[in-house]
Amino acid sequence: MISEAVIKRLPRYYRHLKQLSDSGVERVSSNKIASVLNITASQVRQDLCNFGGFGQQGYGYDVAKLKNELAAILGLDKVYDLIIVGAGNIGRALAGYKGFKDDGFYVRALFDIDPRCSSINGIKVYQMDFLKTYLNQNQVDIAIIATQKDSAKEVASELIANGVKSIWNFAPVELEVPEDVTVENISMSESLYVLSYRSKTRKEKKNSAQ
Amino acid sequence: MISEAVIKRLPRYYRHLKQLSDSGVERVSSNKIASVLNITASQVRQDLCNFGGFGQQGYGYDVAKLKNELAAILGLDKVYDLIIVGAGNIGRALAGYKGFKDDGFYVRALFDIDPRCSSINGIKVYQMDFLKTYLNQNQVDIAIIATQKDSAKEVASELIANGVKSIWNFAPVELEVPEDVTVENISMSESLYVLSYRSKTRKEKKNSAQ
Repeated sequence: MISEAVIKRLPRYYRHLKQLSDSGVERVSSNKIASVLNITASQVRQDLCNFGGFGQQGYGYDVAKLKNELAAILGLDKVYDLIIVGAGNIGRALAGYKGFKDDGFYVRALFDIDPRCSSINGIKVYQMDFLKTYLNQNQVDIAIIATQKDSAKEVASELIANGVKSIWNFAPVELEVPEDVTVENISMSESLYVLSYRSKTRKEKKNSAQ
Repeated sequence: MISEAVIKRLPRYYRHLKQLSDSGVERVSSNKIASVLNITASQVRQDLCNFGGFGQQGYGYDVAKLKNELAAILGLDKVYDLIIVGAGNIGRALAGYKGFKDDGFYVRALFDIDPRCSSINGIKVYQMDFLKTYLNQNQVDIAIIATQKDSAKEVASELIANGVKSIWNFAPVELEVPEDVTVENISMSESLYVLSYRSKTRKEKKNSAQ
């Protein structure tokens, strides 16, 4: 059983190794990884040990090998079928995001209560009331909720009732879901609040130092 | 000194209390907060104690009061001036995001190497080479990086060299910044990787159970 904390760090390792690999770097030490990711080197070694311990004393990690191993662990060697519910600013931005396909994530359809366009970036936009039928006829690995706050809970219920097990939630609400369903929240406002908290404390420190 | 972990949880408390307050709820127990946020009640009480301990045995927390206290702690009773660098899909979506103003975050300008529109949602789009001049003439509390991966590091350096202390990074790179600068990453791909990891392990479990 891999701990939650490790699972959350894995994607950061993967992303960093992908960057290194793209830049032609062939090997890397745990110290170097640690300094970029702002964690300790022993943490890095411990985390990667959980997945087979590929590092070698005095040599470090083979970037390409470790990247591929992590990709396999993260399931990035597969193709995932996605849908997006909500075709507002966020939904449209996601539909146009080029990075997904590189990792095997394919957005197959959008749904909206008021579809103004019949397709966005080549992806068909359907009426909300077609969602249930669509889910029953198509494989959907991940559903993105990009609706307004008020409709997010209802949308989540409908997705779950029709077999969706992974939800990527961009709406600013906490969703309560059954145990076998995974929700990942992209909490934009939370991240912004951390920044405002730091701006504020920074200003306070500056003022009290004067 | 408040720990990193608590700072990260504060916004979630705030958001939940705002939801309760918007729904007309006047008081709430630590148990109720804990169940929605998926943490333990004793954690909730401990966290909120760090900020003055507003709860009362048998009564719970006064929602409005706690919400306002948290808003003040998070610095949400102030106005913040934001700029967005990069006017692609993400930059445009952020420029159109209505939720920011409610919390006092005002996007004042966008910058792009190739501005196709002179303004987006009433916000002026400037040429990238005007960024330095703009930063020297205007107060910028938070800068959003919504550029491609390859330019993000260079943009961050320019922002920091011209006095920006808070960066909200939407580009999929780890930025290395001086100690007095705060970076919050909206790591879309990381969040998605967690979902793919879970989809994969769910499928594996299902297959091995068959």
